[in-house]
Amino acid sequence: MGNDRMKESAVAGEDAMNESTGLRTAETLLRLLPVALCVVALVIMLKDSQSNDFGSLSYSDIGAFRYLVHASGICAGYSILSAVVVAIPRPSTMSRAWTFFLLDQLLTYLILSAGAISTEVVYLAYKGDASITWSQTCGSFGGFCRKATASIAITFIVTLCYAVLSLISSYRLFSKYDAPVPCNNKGIEIPAFQT
Amino acid sequence: MGNDRMKESAVAGEDAMNESTGLRTAETLLRLLPVALCVVALVIMLKDSQSNDFGSLSYSDIGAFRYLVHASGICAGYSILSAVVVAIPRPSTMSRAWTFFLLDQLLTYLILSAGAISTEVVYLAYKGDASITWSQTCGSFGGFCRKATASIAITFIVTLCYAVLSLISSYRLFSKYDAPVPCNNKGIEIPAFQT
Repeated sequence: MGNDRMKESAVAGEDAMNESTGLRTAETLLRLLPVALCVVALVIMLKDSQSNDFGSLSYSDIGAFRYLVHASGICAGYSILSAVVVAIPRPSTMSRAWTFFLLDQLLTYLILSAGAISTEVVYLAYKGDASITWSQTCGSFGGFCRKATASIAITFIVTLCYAVLSLISSYRLFSKYDAPVPCNNKGIEIPAFQT
Repeated sequence: MGNDRMKESAVAGEDAMNESTGLRTAETLLRLLPVALCVVALVIMLKDSQSNDFGSLSYSDIGAFRYLVHASGICAGYSILSAVVVAIPRPSTMSRAWTFFLLDQLLTYLILSAGAISTEVVYLAYKGDASITWSQTCGSFGGFCRKATASIAITFIVTLCYAVLSLISSYRLFSKYDAPVPCNNKGIEIPAFQT
């Protein structure tokens, strides 16, 4: 009986270990992917400039694109740092789980807002706005707008990665807490008057 | 001994119930607050139009502001619906926890992006952009820009509420799962070779 219980607990422990290793590998890869994507988005945007008869236009002329470059840089740096921290197997602490959770959320919001405001600028540059007399800049700077669009599209893939990473870091953090009533998983018998 | 254990479990259960009731009340209030804020942001934006010697300008002339109006409407509707669902005390199921988690995340992204792109438009309207010949519209339509700014500021308060709501719904969802190794809280004894 005691032997059976030990075997059972060893098997359960092994399963949990395999699951944890699998999750750690998946998370490390999911943190390395945005590094590559952010660098590509960054480089495309940094090299985005066009000169023609109408004048010259560079990414640095537009505030939203400068913000996207900074956000991509921060994101690439954080992604590589966090991938290294996650890859090293060691017991997860509460403060580490909270740090990852908060920073992942913050990065998601940062990169989403960078993508959103750049999309708005490209949209305005393509369509213009007659009521506020803003011209369709992309008519004269087609190449510039196409490169910016490519960079923004990659930024949205990064946003998706970070949405999933936020999910993983929420799981890592909150699965350490007890479930709210009545799904208390500590095995406490909940009296009937509570339900 | 058995009596002590029963008492202990009853006290733990009562504590958990009080905590759960407190959390539910806080969550309900936090879901009702965005209803009021979204409606205010919506009304300010809907009434935002100005006519003068330079012409007339309405929120509906600008895509980003139309998006903000729609996002605020959706957010107000979802907030009131979810507040009602949360307020009714009943056992939380896994599918309900997942639905809240995913919808709260989605709403956070929706309302954040609405705030971000509208901020970009107002920023451009105030500052203009000489390199792409976009004029400083707010120079002629100051009142219009001030109202839009107020509406956007409220939208960012809603974003903050939703960031906290996302945290609560993550907690509700993931605290039902077991913790990853080595913080297994099911009481399984983890063999030494795992650490």
